[in-house]
Amino acid sequence: MPVSNKVHVQKDEVNAQRVMDRIEQLATFSSMEGMVTRAYLTDEHKAAHHQLGAWMEEAGLQTWQDEVGNQWGRLLSSNPTEGTVIIGSHSDTVVNAGKYDGTLGVIMAIEALSNLKLNNIELPFHVDVVAFADEEGTRFNTTLLGSCGVAGTWNPDWLDIKDASGISIGQAMKAFGLDINAIPEASRAGDKTKAYLEVHIEQGPVLESCGLPVGVVTGIAGAKRFIVDVSGMAGHAGTVPLELRNDALCAAAEMITTIEAYAKAQGIVATVGKCDIKGGAVNVIPGKVQFSIDIRSQNQELLENSCTQLLMRLQSIAQKRQVTAEAEKIYEASAVTCDSKLQSLWSSVTEDVTRKPVHLLPSGAGHDAMMMATIAPMSMLFLRCEKGISHNPLEDVLTEDVAVGLTCLEKMITAL
Amino acid sequence: MPVSNKVHVQKDEVNAQRVMDRIEQLATFSSMEGMVTRAYLTDEHKAAHHQLGAWMEEAGLQTWQDEVGNQWGRLLSSNPTEGTVIIGSHSDTVVNAGKYDGTLGVIMAIEALSNLKLNNIELPFHVDVVAFADEEGTRFNTTLLGSCGVAGTWNPDWLDIKDASGISIGQAMKAFGLDINAIPEASRAGDKTKAYLEVHIEQGPVLESCGLPVGVVTGIAGAKRFIVDVSGMAGHAGTVPLELRNDALCAAAEMITTIEAYAKAQGIVATVGKCDIKGGAVNVIPGKVQFSIDIRSQNQELLENSCTQLLMRLQSIAQKRQVTAEAEKIYEASAVTCDSKLQSLWSSVTEDVTRKPVHLLPSGAGHDAMMMATIAPMSMLFLRCEKGISHNPLEDVLTEDVAVGLTCLEKMITAL
Repeated sequence: MPVSNKVHVQKDEVNAQRVMDRIEQLATFSSMEGMVTRAYLTDEHKAAHHQLGAWMEEAGLQTWQDEVGNQWGRLLSSNPTEGTVIIGSHSDTVVNAGKYDGTLGVIMAIEALSNLKLNNIELPFHVDVVAFADEEGTRFNTTLLGSCGVAGTWNPDWLDIKDASGISIGQAMKAFGLDINAIPEASRAGDKTKAYLEVHIEQGPVLESCGLPVGVVTGIAGAKRFIVDVSGMAGHAGTVPLELRNDALCAAAEMITTIEAYAKAQGIVATVGKCDIKGGAVNVIPGKVQFSIDIRSQNQELLENSCTQLLMRLQSIAQKRQVTAEAEKIYEASAVTCDSKLQSLWSSVTEDVTRKPVHLLPSGAGHDAMMMATIAPMSMLFLRCEKGISHNPLEDVLTEDVAVGLTCLEKMITAL
Repeated sequence: MPVSNKVHVQKDEVNAQRVMDRIEQLATFSSMEGMVTRAYLTDEHKAAHHQLGAWMEEAGLQTWQDEVGNQWGRLLSSNPTEGTVIIGSHSDTVVNAGKYDGTLGVIMAIEALSNLKLNNIELPFHVDVVAFADEEGTRFNTTLLGSCGVAGTWNPDWLDIKDASGISIGQAMKAFGLDINAIPEASRAGDKTKAYLEVHIEQGPVLESCGLPVGVVTGIAGAKRFIVDVSGMAGHAGTVPLELRNDALCAAAEMITTIEAYAKAQGIVATVGKCDIKGGAVNVIPGKVQFSIDIRSQNQELLENSCTQLLMRLQSIAQKRQVTAEAEKIYEASAVTCDSKLQSLWSSVTEDVTRKPVHLLPSGAGHDAMMMATIAPMSMLFLRCEKGISHNPLEDVLTEDVAVGLTCLEKMITAL
């Protein structure tokens, strides 16, 4: 039905423009003037979720905030005979972020449910939209807190994790107005959930290179993160000959170039995103340096072996330079496969809408979908983004791609 | 006269213990609990100079604070027929510093003048002791501010230089109680100054390896400092293949290891003491990195050539990695030679006191003496320090070496 399909997409182009407008509006909830930075349990988080809640209510959804600070909206079924469908993504951002990562999936889901409500589509299940409050881990260096709360995998020890200014998650939750004793009530692990769906920008250059607006995700890469503390000997920058130095930064620099070369050779991705000199000054030989490593692969076995090998190489560098290096694993997530039936359904929906063969692709980035996969069949739809850029103010998507994605999402919900 | 010399040193051992006690006491004037951090125009600076002033008065000196915040004491001559002798060092420190760098020279000078006063030694010149308020540049990233004021080389543009919290030197001077319009009055450039002497820890391992408590300095290395801004492209740590990245930190890391290797090959010293990722996060490819370079050599021509060559190599790395690198020179000081007559005088004094051949050595570190050399014949005496460690809490000196240094300093003043 190419004609009716065309009409449908045209209608969704109007809706897609509203999605784009709302994304711009949500980008203003930020801790940094002229940049998008929105971390967990901040004033910006509260204000952004308040706005999302207002849009959910405008769409005719029943709304609530759960006990870890996620914002929910429900399209009620008058006769729910099947488990609830949850559609979500996250509302938090990295420092100086783009506008679309996470936000796009939340606002598109609200728009899709608004459309279904307007068209009086009756479904045999509730459809929930959720804005997860912490996926990036910007503030506390620990990710997926929002979806962990929903998956029932929240670890009470996390309450003691502190941000850079020494405020713990527990303290921040209380200040936000959350009851830390009620956190288990956020869990949907015991409920019957029919499916978890997430629409997200690709954050990579594949769909753009294929000339496709959307693609269906096959699975999510496993990831491990480490903090490495390098300790050498501080000293005066003018008086210690280079041969007698134990410069922690030079050691870290050699480690960083080694990590890069090793990851290239193995065909995995590895990133040092943080690197801080303790008490650094222009005329002082660095004595202590701390840096982070983020390593990912679709292949869980390769990921495990690579981490072991790489940490051994870092130890060799430390020994050679007579410094110490201690690596602490701060995060790990296993590679996750998307539900095959939902992949098939997304594939037929996207082929129907785009009139092109579906492109299946893996996700190098982690998503709340990884955590939601522990309590429900999970699948994701990727939207093309410009040059694959994300976690950057240059992040961009086409309004026409949002229209295609909206049509796919609406068809997917009704096809379920 | 070995016997009388021995007696003299024994007396100075008591005085040396007082020097050591006062150094401990001055170390408590710090912005950081359990560490020594004392920067220009801070409350710690004010309190430390108040204490130094009290010790100067106790020693019978006439005291004043000059217009850039240096603390002075004068041993008055009743019949000054010659130019004033100035003995100084600095009272400020790096972050988490040792206790002796700078402080030792100031407190030893007070002790020496106290002894001369007690012994009613009449000199044909005034002897001034000065505690320079800013040698390290810890707060404003610009060094020798105290001695620049005295040498009359203070640049009014410096008043606009800001610290990390955005406070300018001008604002900080006003808050400290200084009149920025009166800064020229701090200058001693027009006065007749007979000599500038400075006693300082070596900050290197040479005297320890020679088994000598003191050594006479031949000259001070020239130094240049740069800030390098590397700009690549931020992006998502999971989704951008390594081949497509323009990672500013990986580029900086290759630059840092290149700086190290180049300096080793040239026999100069080069240090990257600061390295910061702008908006760094564990899961974000670094887009912008800023680091400092400090390069020094006794050989001014080698220093110039090395800087040119090294900056070209950094540009090559930037081009290869498709990032940009901009280097800004933030500081330079030319190599300075100590006054030959004063070197000879120090040499005969130290040989007399230690009964060993003098050891002449260059200084890899910069000192206020470099600036004072522009207005007076300048020379320095180095004191052995443990393992050459400085700019570090492990900095240490022997009380018996302080006793030797005190004897030498008193003899040097009377020999003038």
